[in-house]
Amino acid sequence: MATLVDNRYGKAKVRVLRLFKTGDYHKIFDFDCCVLLLGDEFKETYLTGDNKRVVPTDTVKNTIYVLAQQETFKSLEEFGIILGKHFIKTYSHVQGVHATMKENSWARMGTGKQQDHSFVREREIHTIQVNSSRGQEPQVTSGIDDLLIMKTTQSGFEGYNKCQYTTLKETSDRVFATVVTANWTYNTLNVDYTKAFEIMKQSVFEIFSSTYSKSVQESLFLMAKLALERCPQIETIKMSLPNKHAFGFDFSRLNIQNQNTVFQPVEEPSGLIEGTIKRSVSSKL
Amino acid sequence: MATLVDNRYGKAKVRVLRLFKTGDYHKIFDFDCCVLLLGDEFKETYLTGDNKRVVPTDTVKNTIYVLAQQETFKSLEEFGIILGKHFIKTYSHVQGVHATMKENSWARMGTGKQQDHSFVREREIHTIQVNSSRGQEPQVTSGIDDLLIMKTTQSGFEGYNKCQYTTLKETSDRVFATVVTANWTYNTLNVDYTKAFEIMKQSVFEIFSSTYSKSVQESLFLMAKLALERCPQIETIKMSLPNKHAFGFDFSRLNIQNQNTVFQPVEEPSGLIEGTIKRSVSSKL
Amino acid sequence: MATLVDNRYGKAKVRVLRLFKTGDYHKIFDFDCCVLLLGDEFKETYLTGDNKRVVPTDTVKNTIYVLAQQETFKSLEEFGIILGKHFIKTYSHVQGVHATMKENSWARMGTGKQQDHSFVREREIHTIQVNSSRGQEPQVTSGIDDLLIMKTTQSGFEGYNKCQYTTLKETSDRVFATVVTANWTYNTLNVDYTKAFEIMKQSVFEIFSSTYSKSVQESLFLMAKLALERCPQIETIKMSLPNKHAFGFDFSRLNIQNQNTVFQPVEEPSGLIEGTIKRSVSSKL
Amino acid sequence: MATLVDNRYGKAKVRVLRLFKTGDYHKIFDFDCCVLLLGDEFKETYLTGDNKRVVPTDTVKNTIYVLAQQETFKSLEEFGIILGKHFIKTYSHVQGVHATMKENSWARMGTGKQQDHSFVREREIHTIQVNSSRGQEPQVTSGIDDLLIMKTTQSGFEGYNKCQYTTLKETSDRVFATVVTANWTYNTLNVDYTKAFEIMKQSVFEIFSSTYSKSVQESLFLMAKLALERCPQIETIKMSLPNKHAFGFDFSRLNIQNQNTVFQPVEEPSGLIEGTIKRSVSSKL
Repeated sequence: MATLVDNRYGKAKVRVLRLFKTGDYHKIFDFDCCVLLLGDEFKETYLTGDNKRVVPTDTVKNTIYVLAQQETFKSLEEFGIILGKHFIKTYSHVQGVHATMKENSWARMGTGKQQDHSFVREREIHTIQVNSSRGQEPQVTSGIDDLLIMKTTQSGFEGYNKCQYTTLKETSDRVFATVVTANWTYNTLNVDYTKAFEIMKQSVFEIFSSTYSKSVQESLFLMAKLALERCPQIETIKMSLPNKHAFGFDFSRLNIQNQNTVFQPVEEPSGLIEGTIKRSVSSKL
Repeated sequence: MATLVDNRYGKAKVRVLRLFKTGDYHKIFDFDCCVLLLGDEFKETYLTGDNKRVVPTDTVKNTIYVLAQQETFKSLEEFGIILGKHFIKTYSHVQGVHATMKENSWARMGTGKQQDHSFVREREIHTIQVNSSRGQEPQVTSGIDDLLIMKTTQSGFEGYNKCQYTTLKETSDRVFATVVTANWTYNTLNVDYTKAFEIMKQSVFEIFSSTYSKSVQESLFLMAKLALERCPQIETIKMSLPNKHAFGFDFSRLNIQNQNTVFQPVEEPSGLIEGTIKRSVSSKL
Repeated sequence: MATLVDNRYGKAKVRVLRLFKTGDYHKIFDFDCCVLLLGDEFKETYLTGDNKRVVPTDTVKNTIYVLAQQETFKSLEEFGIILGKHFIKTYSHVQGVHATMKENSWARMGTGKQQDHSFVREREIHTIQVNSSRGQEPQVTSGIDDLLIMKTTQSGFEGYNKCQYTTLKETSDRVFATVVTANWTYNTLNVDYTKAFEIMKQSVFEIFSSTYSKSVQESLFLMAKLALERCPQIETIKMSLPNKHAFGFDFSRLNIQNQNTVFQPVEEPSGLIEGTIKRSVSSKL
Repeated sequence: MATLVDNRYGKAKVRVLRLFKTGDYHKIFDFDCCVLLLGDEFKETYLTGDNKRVVPTDTVKNTIYVLAQQETFKSLEEFGIILGKHFIKTYSHVQGVHATMKENSWARMGTGKQQDHSFVREREIHTIQVNSSRGQEPQVTSGIDDLLIMKTTQSGFEGYNKCQYTTLKETSDRVFATVVTANWTYNTLNVDYTKAFEIMKQSVFEIFSSTYSKSVQESLFLMAKLALERCPQIETIKMSLPNKHAFGFDFSRLNIQNQNTVFQPVEEPSGLIEGTIKRSVSSKL
């Protein structure tokens, strides 16, 4: 009566701190890692409870730490590729590996020698997804999350559709705050992932801070377009921009003039604007 | 150089409390609602900042409250279908509507008349996704989330694959705790959604509490299989069961006998077991 | 130039699951534990980095697990007293111990034999604070947290102070939702702590569900008063009740009649009402 | 039987964004605000439900926004003093005001003109508590929270107390990560609060990054001592430093050499070190 049509399993939330030391100078990767294994032979334990093909999730965890120590990598995208290769090579019944990581961002603290090994945690998260399948090239997706930005002018929303349920007033000067979530894929495996991430982030900052925003949608598209122009290895960008509203407080009920200097940020509800932007065919590498 | 290949937008995190009153007796729906609109004509604001086709997200929010008051519904799945119909009917350029909801669970407080309008919040969440497209039947997905359950015996893990990185010990008596996340679809629109939800939850409870678990995978499959047997309208079930480990504390380092009564629950890492189970063709309604 | 006037240290967030087994029937304590040590001799490591008197926080953690296995207790208040006694007895330079615990609440799952060892997590938290000082009786504080309750009628707010900044409308029928936080102390160490907790919780439920609330303040006082009446061992109760607003949606801007069935719960801001209620002298045991 | 011995109430989680504009250049204060009122006459509503002396929490909220617009201030400590003065002056039955604020930290985005009004949210929180009582000087407490820092060497823990429950190994090279929480009071109202905050933060960074840490306790004391030396207006500093452990992964079970480059950060449990440091009498201003 019941058929298992899809299955995967593994270890999630494996916390890893990896140091690369050059004398006193430390480069760090601080990340959460999830590795899930796919394969038809794993179905047996679902259907009968026979575990003989199951690589324990504890073994998956141990392996992540072993590879983190044994391998050298310049980005977690590269580490994700390493993870996929290992599990496919080691276990003949593994058909695919889904590795996802969340990398915490740390800024170096202070100046001079102090900053060699002391760090301050930043807010944003670097996300990585590497899907590996036996006999195929790994598919790498990079991303950014929890990047909260705000501009206090140079944003408006006018000329929109009005209907019986419209109560919003048009404005050419509003506060615009958003938490940037973006994910992007590549058209090659020959990528400097760290540089791609920086280009994406700087494209967001440049459009956000230097252009007047006619709509969140317009800003989203311009950010993605600029990143595609600057990083030819990026193929597709998916962005999600909540409009985290900060409304002007309604002083009119108190017979007080609104001076447009006091706002009431609200967590709920928020607008939500999404879009996927792809490199046009004619402009491919 | 850049092409917008996908777009949707709307209002997220709209908090609604809807009361249906029968004299002093109140039935409540307490939920977060997100409604996103899809349509080719919405691309214009992405590409040029021209908002003339944009239904403001503020209008989307107002509409949710208007429909919540004006309509009668016995489940939020039904309300999701109502939302989709409204936006498609009202705006000729809306091609699709994605409505997602998270319903908070409240138990009635006390006994007798007291419980008519007093409630205690429970932990679990009922999730709803209704995707509506112009000219097609709505696609309804129901789900449960944040349902944290634990059994303190009658679970083991033995006979698994061993390799050089295996350090896990086999056991026939371990603590098994998990947060159930499940999503299911239907083979008809003629569904008592509240009853389907209860069947799903009771199937989880019944398998979890009354069978010895040979693996998380086996328990997952049995839960889904039982729900499919009991609710013929459910077509496919996707489940995700983290294995929230509670390890026995290592008393051996202190030369103290382990009596198997003290455990150390850990949030990180956790196993993660996923599976999708479909009704077999021969057993369809 | 700088004087250390206060110091304490220890291990926080020690997760413990303790089973008491009677055949197949398991009673469980699932809690987070924090044990902090106080003593003048611990100052040395602050002032010079000399650790010779420092009991490592890792040892504190080990001890918690050892005592959890070795001791029998009927409540975590009792376990907190045991913890204090142990550290004061074992280390002559420990002058005081602050033990705080958060106990997770689990309901038994299902019926009959099923419920012997299967559980569903509830939302509320039981909090415990035991302060022990050498040569003195331990001071026990019990509490409840995260108990989210709501009534959808039988609450109002009228007759309040009006001034130039008042815009609130009076009402005799509003939604009243709150997260109960309460802490209480005792006038004896001869207490059934589990029963005291149940009395406190039932007093909250009874007042909340069976009386019209003229103000959050009034409800708070009545809850505490009822608990003092019913549990003579409780001496003082401190309560904190946020007023988690759920405002009627403003349909007037849409020219739609408000039927008082749709509300907009808001997380921010919330009212906050606090009070400490003490047993009157004449009514002491 | 029951006596109300303490009471306060007001509005919590009032979200305010205040802009001070100099042409295109905006300075911002983004904060959560809680204002609680104290006074004997507020007892009446607790005891009888008579609200006639109650200033509605909604009025408290309105007042916060009015004062935020109407007043000029260079720090939220100053705004907290303004809030206290207002409520005590306006309502003769208000005896005290407890104003607490959490200020979000925003860095200016980009360079040049771009950064005039565009910001990126940082992680740390600036906390403020101003307690005002009728006829007395306000008591100001400033603080920092959620400042997560890590050093990957130059920290150890040796020479500590050993007993039967000690399993920790001594080390002169460990990872030291902590979330700094600090609160400090002043010996005068003539303070540049922004400068005091910066001194505190820089003192933390300087000790953390430039000294070998013999214990968390030693580092805590040195940080506070340096801040007291550099900011003569600060009188007392209370610090709380969790020791957020990152243990070396145990490769020995896999017969692999540990190269001291891979660590396993754990959220639970954590050490917790607290201390209060006061300016010595002889060094007062």
